[in-house]
Amino acid sequence: MSEIAVISAKSGKFRKDSSTSLLDIACEPCISIFNQYPHLRDDIDCVLFSTTSDIQYGSTILSEYLGIKSNISQRIDNLCNSGTNAIISGYSFIKAGLCSTVLVVGADLKNTQGRSLKWDISRGQFPFPVHWAALFAKSHMRRFGTTEEQMASVAVKNRNNAMKNPAAFHSSRITLEEVLGSKKIVDPIKLLDCSFVCDGASAIVMTNKDNAKEFTDIPVWIAGIGTCVSSASFAGISDDLSSLKSAKIAARRAYDMAKIRPRDLDIVELHDAFTIMEIISYEDLDLAEKGEGGKYVTHGDIAINPRGGLLGSGHPLGATGIAQTVEIVEQLMGKAEGRQVQTPHRLGLVHNLAAAGSSAAIIILGSEL
Amino acid sequence: MSEIAVISAKSGKFRKDSSTSLLDIACEPCISIFNQYPHLRDDIDCVLFSTTSDIQYGSTILSEYLGIKSNISQRIDNLCNSGTNAIISGYSFIKAGLCSTVLVVGADLKNTQGRSLKWDISRGQFPFPVHWAALFAKSHMRRFGTTEEQMASVAVKNRNNAMKNPAAFHSSRITLEEVLGSKKIVDPIKLLDCSFVCDGASAIVMTNKDNAKEFTDIPVWIAGIGTCVSSASFAGISDDLSSLKSAKIAARRAYDMAKIRPRDLDIVELHDAFTIMEIISYEDLDLAEKGEGGKYVTHGDIAINPRGGLLGSGHPLGATGIAQTVEIVEQLMGKAEGRQVQTPHRLGLVHNLAAAGSSAAIIILGSEL
Repeated sequence: MSEIAVISAKSGKFRKDSSTSLLDIACEPCISIFNQYPHLRDDIDCVLFSTTSDIQYGSTILSEYLGIKSNISQRIDNLCNSGTNAIISGYSFIKAGLCSTVLVVGADLKNTQGRSLKWDISRGQFPFPVHWAALFAKSHMRRFGTTEEQMASVAVKNRNNAMKNPAAFHSSRITLEEVLGSKKIVDPIKLLDCSFVCDGASAIVMTNKDNAKEFTDIPVWIAGIGTCVSSASFAGISDDLSSLKSAKIAARRAYDMAKIRPRDLDIVELHDAFTIMEIISYEDLDLAEKGEGGKYVTHGDIAINPRGGLLGSGHPLGATGIAQTVEIVEQLMGKAEGRQVQTPHRLGLVHNLAAAGSSAAIIILGSEL
Repeated sequence: MSEIAVISAKSGKFRKDSSTSLLDIACEPCISIFNQYPHLRDDIDCVLFSTTSDIQYGSTILSEYLGIKSNISQRIDNLCNSGTNAIISGYSFIKAGLCSTVLVVGADLKNTQGRSLKWDISRGQFPFPVHWAALFAKSHMRRFGTTEEQMASVAVKNRNNAMKNPAAFHSSRITLEEVLGSKKIVDPIKLLDCSFVCDGASAIVMTNKDNAKEFTDIPVWIAGIGTCVSSASFAGISDDLSSLKSAKIAARRAYDMAKIRPRDLDIVELHDAFTIMEIISYEDLDLAEKGEGGKYVTHGDIAINPRGGLLGSGHPLGATGIAQTVEIVEQLMGKAEGRQVQTPHRLGLVHNLAAAGSSAAIIILGSEL
């Protein structure tokens, strides 16, 4: 393990049509943390703000809103995996000895430009992520016999999980029939196969070993990190339209760093922007054999997306990677309340993609050093 | 020393009214580096893009433009010290063992929103940085007898230095009389006391010790890093309007990490957004005694802003901290051509402020490990 720990983690309520400003939304999970641990505010010497918004100097302004005197302050963007990237920066600053306690905040509003990938001319006239999801779904169905019912069952599972997550965007149960009968967007992807971009914020506090042990009996340690950019454009994402090069490489790097095998994991938060992406990600993470992802939805043996994933919780771009990490931390701390998965749970993984899977960031967390 | 080195550094031409896109401008210094060292492109496993622009996923798109396959990719903003912040991230990623060779690119266009600090309501109706520069100038003149001539002589020195810098925005000599006679903006600040926000890009490549020694006989090592945020608003910047809390603290941290004294420095690139800021920064960096900054302009004993500083080179916000670092690296490598300062030169410092000095980042570089 890295001897760097997450000691507190919170998400605000994910929602839409908020009249609240980005900065106010960003403050919500931070205030929850400071309400629980008032002294923590004074220990923070680095604030990292993950967002795709255009708020210049945003991390420093956010620090002033929160009454934090930091040394390092940065706004960080890498589209939908901005959140895990900011966590990786915080880890590195502590590891390099430049600071000791880092607040990583992710927040975005539903109207982010990042909903459309206009800069990628290799997508032709199809800049919306749903177009590439349809290509991946068609390819996986053709090659491996994956069915629309299997995809729909991902949505049903994650929406049901979200009902136990007070921060989730969605709070109602859906049925297989409702998913299959929902409006077709791009064949075979239907409305309820898609995650919704929304407003939301999440935050974690990370620190070094000495501080962590002083602060809490149940720190969650960063065990592995893996990142990979395969391209910025659709053209370089995949050789076969049924897996993501970036995620496969990033996962292998994270497993190597953590010195674990996929089967050692107890819980995974993966980037289910569309139902087909959850199925493909089982395979990219080596949880299921290639082509077996469709069956794994109902026959998998570890907890996948217990907070409801992006499909159930919503997808505020810059917050998503942090919200995923919050869930793994709460589960490993045993603080996930109604969502708490089986014990003993020791190892969890965060799988966070960006821009149609053209880049991936994976973080493995563990409850034991 | 940190055992992390800068091995190549370039700036593109700083200019205005460019018809070139931000990404094209950002590529210019990178292509200069790769033209000189073609194999370096394949070694890069991290691309960091410092910019205040709203280009989402910008570092990953830039990587694809440049044909780089990276692991870590981030767009980083902290307004005018985005550049040094990105360098500090690159340093930390290498130090943490997450990557080995980092390309840090800074680029901005003159029309950045960051010209005006509208979010800071403590500035009342005065959102432009020139207003606070005038307050600092008045205070320094009143308390220490600093004169308008001393401020003007900063502009003359730096504009003359810029004539030897092919990347500089300005290329013409100016006289003391021209500075003193230029249009008054906010008393006592005149037009030629101000740096100009312009288009521009700079880039450096950093790597670990083993790679550095294989690559070049003259790596430049990162010896010290110091950062500090005093506030995001004018209200928290200074106790006496004649020094910047952030810069003083950041400098002390950098000197401590590098285990050097200010007098050990041979060369400094400091953040002369306005002439008064160079005078105040001599004092904040402990190069001159408090109140003696005005006299130090013409009586200092080390090279200050040999590339022309911001006053001579121009100020493309996200590029500035990297352009400053390029100059120190070229000087310590002995590659500054017509600008090369006295030898032996072993230690240089980069002083990079943001948003009226509300945050500061200092990097000390050395030619010996």
